[in-house]
Amino acid sequence: MNYKMIGRFVGKILLVEAIFMLPALFISIYKGEDDSVFGFVCSIIVTTLLGLSLVLGCKNAKKVFYAKEGMVCVAVSWFLISFAGAFPFYLSGEIPMFVDALFETVSGFTTTGASILPEVESLSMGLIYWRSFTHWLGGMGVLVFVLAIANGDKSRGGFAMHLLRAESPGPKVGKLVPKMKNTAEILYGMYIILTLLDFIFLLLGGMPVFDSLCTAFGTAGTGGFGIKNDSMAGYSPYLQNVCTVFMLLFGVNFSCYYFIFIGNVKDIFKDEELRLYLGLVTCSILLITSDIYKLYDGVGEALRHAAFQVSSIITTTGFATTDFDLWPSFSKMILMLLMIVGACAGSTGGGFKCGRALLIFKNLKRNIKHSLHSKSVEVIRVNNQVIEEKVLETTNAYLAAYVFIILASIILISLDNFSVTTNITAVLATFNNIGPGFDAVGPTCNFAGFGVISKLVLILDMLAGRLEIFTIMVLFLRSTWRYK
Amino acid sequence: MNYKMIGRFVGKILLVEAIFMLPALFISIYKGEDDSVFGFVCSIIVTTLLGLSLVLGCKNAKKVFYAKEGMVCVAVSWFLISFAGAFPFYLSGEIPMFVDALFETVSGFTTTGASILPEVESLSMGLIYWRSFTHWLGGMGVLVFVLAIANGDKSRGGFAMHLLRAESPGPKVGKLVPKMKNTAEILYGMYIILTLLDFIFLLLGGMPVFDSLCTAFGTAGTGGFGIKNDSMAGYSPYLQNVCTVFMLLFGVNFSCYYFIFIGNVKDIFKDEELRLYLGLVTCSILLITSDIYKLYDGVGEALRHAAFQVSSIITTTGFATTDFDLWPSFSKMILMLLMIVGACAGSTGGGFKCGRALLIFKNLKRNIKHSLHSKSVEVIRVNNQVIEEKVLETTNAYLAAYVFIILASIILISLDNFSVTTNITAVLATFNNIGPGFDAVGPTCNFAGFGVISKLVLILDMLAGRLEIFTIMVLFLRSTWRYK
Repeated sequence: MNYKMIGRFVGKILLVEAIFMLPALFISIYKGEDDSVFGFVCSIIVTTLLGLSLVLGCKNAKKVFYAKEGMVCVAVSWFLISFAGAFPFYLSGEIPMFVDALFETVSGFTTTGASILPEVESLSMGLIYWRSFTHWLGGMGVLVFVLAIANGDKSRGGFAMHLLRAESPGPKVGKLVPKMKNTAEILYGMYIILTLLDFIFLLLGGMPVFDSLCTAFGTAGTGGFGIKNDSMAGYSPYLQNVCTVFMLLFGVNFSCYYFIFIGNVKDIFKDEELRLYLGLVTCSILLITSDIYKLYDGVGEALRHAAFQVSSIITTTGFATTDFDLWPSFSKMILMLLMIVGACAGSTGGGFKCGRALLIFKNLKRNIKHSLHSKSVEVIRVNNQVIEEKVLETTNAYLAAYVFIILASIILISLDNFSVTTNITAVLATFNNIGPGFDAVGPTCNFAGFGVISKLVLILDMLAGRLEIFTIMVLFLRSTWRYK
Repeated sequence: MNYKMIGRFVGKILLVEAIFMLPALFISIYKGEDDSVFGFVCSIIVTTLLGLSLVLGCKNAKKVFYAKEGMVCVAVSWFLISFAGAFPFYLSGEIPMFVDALFETVSGFTTTGASILPEVESLSMGLIYWRSFTHWLGGMGVLVFVLAIANGDKSRGGFAMHLLRAESPGPKVGKLVPKMKNTAEILYGMYIILTLLDFIFLLLGGMPVFDSLCTAFGTAGTGGFGIKNDSMAGYSPYLQNVCTVFMLLFGVNFSCYYFIFIGNVKDIFKDEELRLYLGLVTCSILLITSDIYKLYDGVGEALRHAAFQVSSIITTTGFATTDFDLWPSFSKMILMLLMIVGACAGSTGGGFKCGRALLIFKNLKRNIKHSLHSKSVEVIRVNNQVIEEKVLETTNAYLAAYVFIILASIILISLDNFSVTTNITAVLATFNNIGPGFDAVGPTCNFAGFGVISKLVLILDMLAGRLEIFTIMVLFLRSTWRYK
């Protein structure tokens, strides 16, 4: 294991994080929030010292860097930035328990949006900004991660390329432009432009600048931390609709935007993953509207809430305009299905991913056909491209890991003796990086009631979900740490 | 499609079913239950006529019989025997709605044990006997089915052999003895002997003959229809313990008993599936006992209930000695996990099967390792035998189908607006052929409250679970019915 190189990488990331804390510090100073100024100053100093000592202590690293190191590096980075990111909450005294501060920060960076705060509005402005900003950084991190995987292992048989292929069965992210650095620039460019557009549309609807900025951060990262106690319920229908549209946009595979950018719009609507995603969204909105229209003043309002909630859940954002825990069972079960499916691969959204669901479904169909004609040999195509068998195997293994982690987590957190619904949806909502679930973790509730062990389990779930499971699971494999 | 051969086969099965209704008729005559005598006489006549007309109408069938025909044959048989088996309940007037009678019968034949009856004891003795006897017949049917799959397709690349291999990764059922007919005789012999032993042990504990017989039927088929309103709660601890032991025995791969029979005891405890099964049972009992002992008078009683319930759920039987819906969340979640895992392959139990879970887990581990060393090639072994890649693929596809059916069913039945817990566990309990779930379908409740559509969905789930999914899914594939 090339520990020095990992140390150096993580050190640099921490230094970057310290710089990103500065705007939040300035807001706190401007608003005269003494406690959080103290918290941010201490946090920036500690994070900088930690980062510097890692960078300086890990000089002269060997250049050898395998897939193994890449995965450990990513996992350790996410752990450490979450740790450092929790300092301001804890040191300011606004979140008194460190595990809660860590939960909130991991929830931020992983763009989950699950909170332990009973009411957000009592938090200082600096911390509210930092909390929302972690979503935006997390979203960026996920995009890097997609690229890092693409770049880490170019060998034909390698896992990383396959994962990327499995993740982006549409137009391939790694092949957008020849050089990785350019691809990163284009991805970030699109991310920033979309965030800005969202921000402007919110401003135009009369939302205050601070609110617009934080909401745009939460939407772009598909995070979902609200800055009001009632999430998005208090905002005007126009603002809610803007949010609906932008949540959906951030759930789309970013390579689609690149195709628009180069003027190739036609190919996008042939993309099978995008069609599945839009199909699911449309059907869900129609079904839920017909199920809930009696609860609201007319079909229009029901449609608005249904569209908002469907977009919020399938993109794994987690904002709410209404207490959907009070909806009829049918609507809730549709939302639960969307929680699992998740957004498109190559977006900032989490969940199992539409692209994977598509592959799993096609593979299943082939297997049933094969049971009839045992000698038939059939390849699976997505967007007219043949999918390698290895990709299918990895995707199947992903499903197995997905089911395994969910079941194990449900059992562990059930020790806190919440209801069956709470246990199941708390795990689904964190592991798929959504935020709210049903019952005791419904949109009007929070995760504060769980014990320390459950919170740690859910923290691990958020990270595992965000880092596509295997990256975290590798840490628990003996052979990762074996001396070679 | 060789319709004539299928017709002939199904016709014969119906004739056999008519014969098996006779004992129930005699009980009704003996007890002077006029309504059910009428019901049975009519049912026997109708079933016989239907069977005869099929057998006579489908003469001169071609001998060509592919895997496709085999699967359609099995699926159609199970539908039709359930249909005919529901006549006595309906024609006697004791279950006034036909869909309820069908639900009860499918639940019987598939050895599920989910009931729509609010209280069993008001049923006539003849019908109670028939209801329990369907479990025993269903258990036999499953054993035939295992063999039919083994025999239907001997080609190396074929699905059926693979399914069998996936199902019995332990000592291979299909290879116990060279000729299939002998294997069937041995399997049935063991089934009958174990049932008799159960019956005798229950009699020795002072259980009435009728109760002992019906309970033995329900245990052997891992069915779980109780003949008392409180299932097994009213019987003595000795009788409950006997039931615990026999439930566990019927959840073991039957080929293990063959190995005992030929004196090869040593190999059994090397069987990885059996070890997983026993390990899961032991751990679950200990964890649940430590979780619930405060609810009962001492650890002994808690242990008895825990052991009974764990055995009842993992073997997918579904008897109850206590209302486990009142247990703490942790115990309930362990039971929910056991609902999903299910019993060993090659037993009368349902669920995903321990053997499949073992394969999925080993495959997952290999995939994570592969993500580190992308050039490593590793085979998967169970009981020191190499598992073919095709088997792994089929097992993975099985998992996908399993998840897909559960999610789709949950959404469909949620239209009846029951709680999230009810929806989820109702589907788990029927699809895995268990019986009771939690909340509105808990051990003291029943499935009567669901609407017609939900009942039909759950009926399909019971059949799909029992026939290992693909057999039922094949019916919905266009290419099955395409003229060649």
